[in-house]
Amino acid sequence: MSSTKKQHKLLLLSKQASDYRDILEKARLPGLEIVTGEELSHPADCDIAFGEPNLIRDILPRLLALKWAQSTWAGVEPLLDPALRRDYTLTNARGVFGGLMSEFVLAYLLLRERKILQRLEAQNEHRWDASSTGTLRGKTIGLLGVGSIGAELARTAKFFGMIVRGYTKSSETSKHVDKYYHDREIFEFASGVDYLVCVLPNTPATRRIVSAELLSQLPPHALFINVGRGSAVEESALIQALETGAISGAVLDVFEQEPLPEGHPFWTTKNLIITSHTSAPSFPAEIARVFIENYRRYITGAPLEHVVDFERGY
Amino acid sequence: MSSTKKQHKLLLLSKQASDYRDILEKARLPGLEIVTGEELSHPADCDIAFGEPNLIRDILPRLLALKWAQSTWAGVEPLLDPALRRDYTLTNARGVFGGLMSEFVLAYLLLRERKILQRLEAQNEHRWDASSTGTLRGKTIGLLGVGSIGAELARTAKFFGMIVRGYTKSSETSKHVDKYYHDREIFEFASGVDYLVCVLPNTPATRRIVSAELLSQLPPHALFINVGRGSAVEESALIQALETGAISGAVLDVFEQEPLPEGHPFWTTKNLIITSHTSAPSFPAEIARVFIENYRRYITGAPLEHVVDFERGY
Repeated sequence: MSSTKKQHKLLLLSKQASDYRDILEKARLPGLEIVTGEELSHPADCDIAFGEPNLIRDILPRLLALKWAQSTWAGVEPLLDPALRRDYTLTNARGVFGGLMSEFVLAYLLLRERKILQRLEAQNEHRWDASSTGTLRGKTIGLLGVGSIGAELARTAKFFGMIVRGYTKSSETSKHVDKYYHDREIFEFASGVDYLVCVLPNTPATRRIVSAELLSQLPPHALFINVGRGSAVEESALIQALETGAISGAVLDVFEQEPLPEGHPFWTTKNLIITSHTSAPSFPAEIARVFIENYRRYITGAPLEHVVDFERGY
Repeated sequence: MSSTKKQHKLLLLSKQASDYRDILEKARLPGLEIVTGEELSHPADCDIAFGEPNLIRDILPRLLALKWAQSTWAGVEPLLDPALRRDYTLTNARGVFGGLMSEFVLAYLLLRERKILQRLEAQNEHRWDASSTGTLRGKTIGLLGVGSIGAELARTAKFFGMIVRGYTKSSETSKHVDKYYHDREIFEFASGVDYLVCVLPNTPATRRIVSAELLSQLPPHALFINVGRGSAVEESALIQALETGAISGAVLDVFEQEPLPEGHPFWTTKNLIITSHTSAPSFPAEIARVFIENYRRYITGAPLEHVVDFERGY
């Protein structure tokens, strides 16, 4: 028996709804009633939705009282379709993925530098492979996109003694970026980097930005990593660069179509590693913190954090 | 034609002697004549030796004028044999391996957390493996040994949000260690850690310190990494822990006998990764800096850095 009147009704729409429910109930948020998709009989009276954008999209027309939707993901493409309503505040998950993305990128940089796969092969043959190893120190990383995730990547790369270049629309806010590049300086930005890492969201300005011309700036030993969005890559150009040895490898976490369809040429492209959109999982404990902070703002009328601009796309 | 009289004669004994020679010649060290093993006709008049301890050991009896030997390695076991002379100052390479060791340890922690090998297997089968990933954040690492390398490992682990335990003889100098353990607290130290990393040198006190009893403190998901010395590990106990699944994996960079002999059971032990003593290569540019600094001290009569205590062994 609760003595608090529930003024707000939250619809939880997530594959991990029960985890989120446990966390939110423990947080005892004032005035909040929580229902999950399964229990939903009257979607029309929910003023808040919290969950995966694709699940929210499916029920959006029926959420007549919706004022605010909090995404559990950083990317909110499913809700950006101009045919969908935009008469509510959409917030995404930001500031929680930088650390995870940094672990992911570091993992694959070190896989390369420390020749892990080569040494495992030697071990299979019972062969002592003491061939010398590489190091991150002094290598150059180029970050396509330096938002909150890119800035965390810059901080991590700098920790390991790397030289950090950043390509952004305009902002120059990370002190861990050695040099910033803008607009048409993108080719200069990419020229000679050891590692090119794309962290860009899906917007009209970022589509196919990783083009044949951009890839041609990279040295043959370069590794390309995409943890942003699949739309940023000109697929045929990347396949050609890999097959001809123009660059030495790529790690793709994101794709235009996910899951990557059977029969897609990426499955058999040389020196390409596919990581199935796992670079920065949404851990409920971390994402719930974003919701809880925003809920406190919502009930006091303060501006919400991480509001998505429907036009800009992030 | 040099106008400076050469008062000191350096014998360079290294597989990378020509790299070291280039660097030292560029540094124009005052009063220094450099000879390499190949050019050596009169070893008796060299007062300085610089190189790999095993190579120095072979010629040690003939270096009648030897006053100082600088090792290119951290480990100087070949020169510690009590049957060998100790009438010279032995210095080792310190303070240059921490960053490289950190890269190595991080590489294998992330290989595990990010399920890299599992996802490569999925890719081979053209299978989208979006199974959730782990993270270093909040995991516990136990460092057996917190000297200059251990301290750098602690700093790196802390950067990634790990909980850091340190086991040392007495010193508690790293602020990145959350809790220190000494002497008989070693079992408490190891209890429940996610990662156990051995950075210990080879001394009587560290022999077989990674025993059956110590390994039994670890949870079944634990990974053991040895970048210290092979003598620290009770091999049969480690093999049993791995074969029975008492721990889930080990990465061994160092062994009692190197190269690891054909037929050694480690080659076929379950969940064991062998990295052939590559965790922290001696890069001539970095090691030469240690020599150059010590040479400046040597010619001015200042105390040398990183002097090895023959009794203590490091």
